Amino acid sequence: MASNRVTIQDLADSLGLSKFSVSRALSGKPGVGEATRNRVIRAAHSMGYRVNQDVNYTAGHILFVRQEIDPVSSELWLNIMHGAEQEGEKLGFAILPRQARHLNDAAPLDSSIVGIILAVPRPSEWSALAARTGLPVVCASYASPMERIDQVVGADWESGYAVARMLAGLGHRNMAFVHGSATPMGRAERFRGFRDGASTVEDAVVDDIVFDESQGFRSAFFRYLRSGKEPTALFCAHDGIAIAVISELLRLGIRVPEDVSVVGFNDFASATHMSPRLTTVRTPQVEMGAAMVRCIAERMASAEARNRPPVRLALVSEIIERESAAQAGKTDWLARVLEAAG
Amino acid sequence: MASNRVTIQDLADSLGLSKFSVSRALSGKPGVGEATRNRVIRAAHSMGYRVNQDVNYTAGHILFVRQEIDPVSSELWLNIMHGAEQEGEKLGFAILPRQARHLNDAAPLDSSIVGIILAVPRPSEWSALAARTGLPVVCASYASPMERIDQVVGADWESGYAVARMLAGLGHRNMAFVHGSATPMGRAERFRGFRDGASTVEDAVVDDIVFDESQGFRSAFFRYLRSGKEPTALFCAHDGIAIAVISELLRLGIRVPEDVSVVGFNDFASATHMSPRLTTVRTPQVEMGAAMVRCIAERMASAEARNRPPVRLALVSEIIERESAAQAGKTDWLARVLEAAG
Repeated sequence: MASNRVTIQDLADSLGLSKFSVSRALSGKPGVGEATRNRVIRAAHSMGYRVNQDVNYTAGHILFVRQEIDPVSSELWLNIMHGAEQEGEKLGFAILPRQARHLNDAAPLDSSIVGIILAVPRPSEWSALAARTGLPVVCASYASPMERIDQVVGADWESGYAVARMLAGLGHRNMAFVHGSATPMGRAERFRGFRDGASTVEDAVVDDIVFDESQGFRSAFFRYLRSGKEPTALFCAHDGIAIAVISELLRLGIRVPEDVSVVGFNDFASATHMSPRLTTVRTPQVEMGAAMVRCIAERMASAEARNRPPVRLALVSEIIERESAAQAGKTDWLARVLEAAG
Repeated sequence: MASNRVTIQDLADSLGLSKFSVSRALSGKPGVGEATRNRVIRAAHSMGYRVNQDVNYTAGHILFVRQEIDPVSSELWLNIMHGAEQEGEKLGFAILPRQARHLNDAAPLDSSIVGIILAVPRPSEWSALAARTGLPVVCASYASPMERIDQVVGADWESGYAVARMLAGLGHRNMAFVHGSATPMGRAERFRGFRDGASTVEDAVVDDIVFDESQGFRSAFFRYLRSGKEPTALFCAHDGIAIAVISELLRLGIRVPEDVSVVGFNDFASATHMSPRLTTVRTPQVEMGAAMVRCIAERMASAEARNRPPVRLALVSEIIERESAAQAGKTDWLARVLEAAG
């Protein structure tokens, strides 16, 4: 070698791989399989290669553990990963994506790995495996009660509370939470916050409309209306549902927001594609990823820090007011819509 | 001066105060009035005195804002202050206690002050005044929904959940939460967790017994028993209530834990004074104070950090099993106790 600095070419030669594959593997980007990635990282470590020589990845590698997940949330998980990568770059950590099932592998983790981010919807399915490594573990959704790992989420209860207060301020008194299932803790917390926020307003009533996301909104909505409800505002468990709801309302001849206000959750890109543009809650997804990296960095700082109690960190969201929520309308569309439905 | 290092004597001379007063004022200890403390800090700052020359208090001063508070919680607030002082010492911050009403003062804060800890039961009463300073603010109890200050609390919901599961594991099915008022958010969250934990166990029932803490437990307990309840376990909103409950049960001839199990909350010193020694939840009070100082230090680190979303940080507690909770007993004491009461 011309210099004693190990290059990507050196790694590629030694492993019999292309420079492209080695580079993808080291940067944690898609395009190489798990087995290859592991081989590359191990070789990089043993040959003394400094991962990404522009940035100073001296603090170690953080596993970013993912899972086959609900496609509606892919933007959330990508934003979290983006935030982790940004903060990792600042603090000297390389973020290595890995599929959760690999936590079952018997082989010990590479010694360059200093912490684990569990970016999975139900961390309790994987946390015991992750904790077995003895490394700091932080999850991006609700841990089990008293579980001794760190947790970073959005402030879900507060978000629901604030949406209810905002809608009540616009004159809405009959509201519903629209969701496919309240099982994921984040949705349940938003619904609880929505009810608690409404309970501070006289005469405000909050129901929920549950529908199978794969079946669409219409049948659940008609069932709801036929039970005698006259909603003027709908708060949706996430922006994907809000889009389903608005488009179905428009097809039924119900105007948004003149007849019914609709509020989403997450502020995904689709929120501004929709017409009317979606009033929604912007969750600090990128900041969640950054905060998870800081959790691991903090635990690594000292033995004292490792022994501190597990943390539950929630980042406060903000309501982004666009066009889909407005002053409460009349429900004079109700008879017409029910009659047309037969 | 023999050296160009400013001494406490120099400050005392310049201010016309005793060395003792200057020292007390600088250390943030009781014994000097607010006005004097402010004069001393201002003079120390302008004369270039390095507060506490043993420790390196170079990072600035953090106001620790207190209030006339419920005496049952004084140990909590003192432990939080202790944790703040310990972490402050490590990071170079001096902690300056101040009464909340001084936030109303028109005079601007000394420029050495870099952040504010609101160690008050209802932070929303003071947070607007604190935020007006433009400094990072962190509170030690629940902020208002979406309020843009940081918050550090114990993981109350999880604690209640875990106590319910622990008691259910001991065979308890009829349980009650004993509290003076569920208004403080922390207590309400523990009660909610207690109910949610019990709801995971078949046949488990959770009620609550509300009594005026100044009136004692007996009348509320009899009212509860006469409504047909047969509790075998009582979870108390804090250790002070647990002590009131146990002592009243013992005076009624009800054995603890053989007849009724009692669980406290906080793990105050009194928890081990009591006989039977109290099974309780140890809340990480010292660690809460330390985490609040780290919140301020983190916000100070960069403009980017100042602009991050407000955080809600909850530290996970642990159950300390001592003697006051055991296998569920029979309620064969009930008829005797009610009869004796007439």
